[in-house]
Amino acid sequence: MINETMEALMMKIAVDAMGGDHAPKVVVNGIERARDQHPDLEFMLFGDPAAVQAQLSNPERITIVPTTEEIEMGEEPVRAIRRKKNSSLVRAAMAVKNGEADAFFSAGNTGAILAAGLFIVGRIKGIDRPGLTSILPVALPNAAQATRFVYLDSGANAESKERNLVQFAQLGRFYASQVLGVANPRVALLNNGAEADKGDSFHKAVHQLLAADDSLNFVGNVEASELLHGKADVVVSDGWTANAALKATEGTAKLVLHLLKDGILNGGWRAKLGYVFLKPVFKKIAKLMTPSNYGGAVLLGLKAPVVKAHGAADEKAIVATIDQIQTMLTSQVVQKTAAYFQAAEENGQTVDKPGEN
Amino acid sequence: MINETMEALMMKIAVDAMGGDHAPKVVVNGIERARDQHPDLEFMLFGDPAAVQAQLSNPERITIVPTTEEIEMGEEPVRAIRRKKNSSLVRAAMAVKNGEADAFFSAGNTGAILAAGLFIVGRIKGIDRPGLTSILPVALPNAAQATRFVYLDSGANAESKERNLVQFAQLGRFYASQVLGVANPRVALLNNGAEADKGDSFHKAVHQLLAADDSLNFVGNVEASELLHGKADVVVSDGWTANAALKATEGTAKLVLHLLKDGILNGGWRAKLGYVFLKPVFKKIAKLMTPSNYGGAVLLGLKAPVVKAHGAADEKAIVATIDQIQTMLTSQVVQKTAAYFQAAEENGQTVDKPGEN
Repeated sequence: MINETMEALMMKIAVDAMGGDHAPKVVVNGIERARDQHPDLEFMLFGDPAAVQAQLSNPERITIVPTTEEIEMGEEPVRAIRRKKNSSLVRAAMAVKNGEADAFFSAGNTGAILAAGLFIVGRIKGIDRPGLTSILPVALPNAAQATRFVYLDSGANAESKERNLVQFAQLGRFYASQVLGVANPRVALLNNGAEADKGDSFHKAVHQLLAADDSLNFVGNVEASELLHGKADVVVSDGWTANAALKATEGTAKLVLHLLKDGILNGGWRAKLGYVFLKPVFKKIAKLMTPSNYGGAVLLGLKAPVVKAHGAADEKAIVATIDQIQTMLTSQVVQKTAAYFQAAEENGQTVDKPGEN
Repeated sequence: MINETMEALMMKIAVDAMGGDHAPKVVVNGIERARDQHPDLEFMLFGDPAAVQAQLSNPERITIVPTTEEIEMGEEPVRAIRRKKNSSLVRAAMAVKNGEADAFFSAGNTGAILAAGLFIVGRIKGIDRPGLTSILPVALPNAAQATRFVYLDSGANAESKERNLVQFAQLGRFYASQVLGVANPRVALLNNGAEADKGDSFHKAVHQLLAADDSLNFVGNVEASELLHGKADVVVSDGWTANAALKATEGTAKLVLHLLKDGILNGGWRAKLGYVFLKPVFKKIAKLMTPSNYGGAVLLGLKAPVVKAHGAADEKAIVATIDQIQTMLTSQVVQKTAAYFQAAEENGQTVDKPGEN
């Protein structure tokens, strides 16, 4: 009886065991650690059975599903998912589509994950385009604020329409309230200029649409210079701008830390001694500025959680990403989002308030 | 006789003495220092005569031109320049238009400077839109490379056409070769993706146009994550993307340095001691990451140098910006650029090679 209840509460994650720079080793080891922490999770590991088996120390709640192909990092995504039907990535996505698994995880080819999410797992009714969602750190938190925020579309769509960004705002506020636990999430638009009348014609129009949507706690524009300043819990943007701003932010943080390291290495004994004393400060900043500590990137707007870890993700990052998927599943964020869009379609407009559902 | 030759070689800069956070004090003091360093320069200081006079210690080669209005930082640019005909900013631009001065300088309202440049100073024939040009640091230079590069359009145009970016590339390569002294400047396109086929349809088309232009040494795409890595001497982009990437880069560099400072202040005696030893390293990075050390932003594509210092510019930054204007004038970069576009129009296509003219 207890076993049957347990069985009913169990959630199953389909894992592309061959995706990522250090697959399958890091993926399998990470999944085992996550399994040990989450008694409510089961895993299907899609991949070369011999290679996956060789890394597996304990098969509890883990099923290996043999596949014969792999999608490489450089492959053209749509062609790859069409041709490699027996790849670990496509088969894992198919398991979600067929109801054999509740969520999809991969550290592989980003484009192929997006394509598999869109064409295999499928969109929530009412969503035109899913948005790639990054969870980013708030670098200047105060006591009242969350330490993370939701950022989308960080690059699923090179070209966006105005209504896509309104949908991103809805997707983002459900994620912030349900998964990050933020009540009444503040939503902002990434724009070149802080005032409402700033930006090109596209972003001016989006600003108006977001401001007019009563279901959103819209707080106005944020500029790329203050992306990590904690001005909002959800920052929406078209995929083009968000991708450029995110790459510039990550690249510059990395660069400044690199320059520090370089200066220390070439700075003689004084600099090296200084480093010893300042090491905890450096470590804290490096940790803050490492996005993989905040979980994977989620393709929001799909019928199930589709989550991507960085190709270079280590075991710890994979465990963090599985934690995130577990929260997405237990919070039922996808179902709640789908219900909102269904109600919106039926009513012709939205009525519920963010953070209250 | 010598005096007459000197007179003929003299170059005159029209200065908006009232523009900037600390005007007229910092502007006047900076201009005096620049005047002392450049015997070939004369200055017209446009502003409140009493306020300017109060800061001026030596009137040599400096003429005060009285004006009665000022354009404030928050004013709507086009309306401001139309209404405030007797503002220091508009009058300085008019002096260039009327041939009384050779170049324009201000640390005031960016939008108003752009509008004054476009509508008063005027475009070079063949240029559809001028590009706001920032001189940025190469953070990872090697022996063969320049320590600075040219970046445009960093925000003059919220919306751009494909041909605008090809013109930006030409404007940028003339600036790099004539003002920065780079032979055969490498030109790159800021794009979301390194490969030629990456990007939205707009940037893919621009990539093709740049690659097809024999007068450009086009080296392909650079991503926002590696903007400061020295991959090109000229990076072109639409004003929207370039503005977002630049703001994210500047904002993140500032943020990381702020976090370091904060960590040191809250890190006890060990961290403070560490800071003492690492101070030279921090100072070097902070200096590298302060764009005003590389001169002002130039509105390229106009009939004369129109250069803007940051509103918070100090004396040193103003001196650096005047140095830059002096190099623009002596190198005749504007005349050479205009000659190129005239020849291109006459020939129907371009023939000259970069770095050889």
